[in-house]
Amino acid sequence: MYRTVLLPSLSTLVLLTSSLASAADLPIKPSVGDLVKQSQASDWRPTDPQHTLYMELASGRVVIELAPSFAPQNIANIETLVREKYYDGLAILRSQDNYVAQWGDPQAETAPRPLGSAKAKVAGEFTVPLKNDRHFVRQPDRDGYAPQIGHSNGFPVGRDTRAGTTWLTHCYGMVGVGRDNGSDSGNGAELYAVTGHAPRHLDRNITVVGRVLSGMALLSSLPRGSETMGFYGAQENRMAIRSVRLEADVPEAERSHLEVMRSEAPIYQQVIDAQRNRGGPWNLFSPGYVELCNAPIPVRVKP
Amino acid sequence: MYRTVLLPSLSTLVLLTSSLASAADLPIKPSVGDLVKQSQASDWRPTDPQHTLYMELASGRVVIELAPSFAPQNIANIETLVREKYYDGLAILRSQDNYVAQWGDPQAETAPRPLGSAKAKVAGEFTVPLKNDRHFVRQPDRDGYAPQIGHSNGFPVGRDTRAGTTWLTHCYGMVGVGRDNGSDSGNGAELYAVTGHAPRHLDRNITVVGRVLSGMALLSSLPRGSETMGFYGAQENRMAIRSVRLEADVPEAERSHLEVMRSEAPIYQQVIDAQRNRGGPWNLFSPGYVELCNAPIPVRVKP
Repeated sequence: MYRTVLLPSLSTLVLLTSSLASAADLPIKPSVGDLVKQSQASDWRPTDPQHTLYMELASGRVVIELAPSFAPQNIANIETLVREKYYDGLAILRSQDNYVAQWGDPQAETAPRPLGSAKAKVAGEFTVPLKNDRHFVRQPDRDGYAPQIGHSNGFPVGRDTRAGTTWLTHCYGMVGVGRDNGSDSGNGAELYAVTGHAPRHLDRNITVVGRVLSGMALLSSLPRGSETMGFYGAQENRMAIRSVRLEADVPEAERSHLEVMRSEAPIYQQVIDAQRNRGGPWNLFSPGYVELCNAPIPVRVKP
Repeated sequence: MYRTVLLPSLSTLVLLTSSLASAADLPIKPSVGDLVKQSQASDWRPTDPQHTLYMELASGRVVIELAPSFAPQNIANIETLVREKYYDGLAILRSQDNYVAQWGDPQAETAPRPLGSAKAKVAGEFTVPLKNDRHFVRQPDRDGYAPQIGHSNGFPVGRDTRAGTTWLTHCYGMVGVGRDNGSDSGNGAELYAVTGHAPRHLDRNITVVGRVLSGMALLSSLPRGSETMGFYGAQENRMAIRSVRLEADVPEAERSHLEVMRSEAPIYQQVIDAQRNRGGPWNLFSPGYVELCNAPIPVRVKP
């Protein structure tokens, strides 16, 4: 039927739902959805309750997993802010189209909320030594922004073996620490999530701390702010942050129970390959290539 | 002040406003905003009224410039649909996070609106012969999805000189023709705009017809649909399309008067370079590289 004009899905943060393709629709080559369906329990790991944040908005929950080995000092500071309930009652300050949503203290300029026992300045962790990362799995597809790319424990990373450094990359859904000009001017009191085409020029320029595992649409579909850089004007309603909690501090019954595909599991290589060369009747041309930010690690609700 | 934690802007569709940086803020190396400010009238071209669409939503206007040399048959069909007011009263059918917004006839399955004198099937124009494109300016930065990349008349393009083909690429804001499995199953009655990280695996798989020059945020900030592939369910309010008109058919006083930077003008090379190696006090690391979809051609309201 010419009226059923569809466009197949980009397999981004894949949350398992009952809406996966039925057996009759299965393409010849498995898609990411098929692979997720065929996966074993051992292909997945739970989130780390000590390093996973639940940001509760009026519109729902945003789950952010932190990657402490890539930004130990900044993440320690953020977790101090969370434990002391710094973010509760703050707001999304900025939504700039094809770029970022950023949250923090709306009264930062006039009557800033005290940081409590958190530090006001934290050294930038734009890159960390290679030895910090013991989970790197290289992706052979070439990349313009980094000598090597791949994934580590579910996070997209770049690395430069000559410089001995590695870093989290600015793919869609990645979360970073806003800063001013000074490299130590960030402290985690303002965080941002990438809501547009990966601004990879920010890599190695700012501290990236983790990624949004679910609830991304709550940030990406916010109205764009009318002021410079997408900041909301005084007359605009900012989305309030009800609370931010560590998963460990949330009762078991209220947790999201997300699992992340193990990037070191063989199935993940199949997931990447399914995106390099897509099967099924729709795809007529295969690029034989997949860009780092087009191969996100699948996430599911624990079955 | 540590409380003023900002993140500089990705220069995406740059609409000139009064909010550009003041002289005191000028970085040592010109930014895209600076270059736009310094540009001459001859660096810009007006939109082509015969091939520019105004899609009027309740929330505002989306301006789409078509690229007839890259999809002559599909664009002719779309323009027929526009002239016969096919799209008036239809709706946005789908918003899938980090992927596309798609519009068309909500009753396509049950009581489809007649296509009038437009064709029901149009041959896919996934690539066109190199000779169709006489405006190509190559961008030397390497790309994983195409042997060569660059811009033509303001549109991002890929090309394969051995195959003798060229095509528009799926960068943020690009508009394409939804289709079913058959390569000729699209006709322009359903169109989509890219609202997420560039799904470049769609390149050479589907007909791309143009790009959104303004109003992109009206599409990208739509609530995501709850059904498979981001389709809106029956209970969800779809954004209605009031009308779609050719710019040529809109009275002069009601036009948007947009101008597109000439990709063949020397200033555009400076614009790309400003994104390869960013100046100013904020940028501590320069990648010396810019990906095709991170170097969109600037757009402005005619001063």
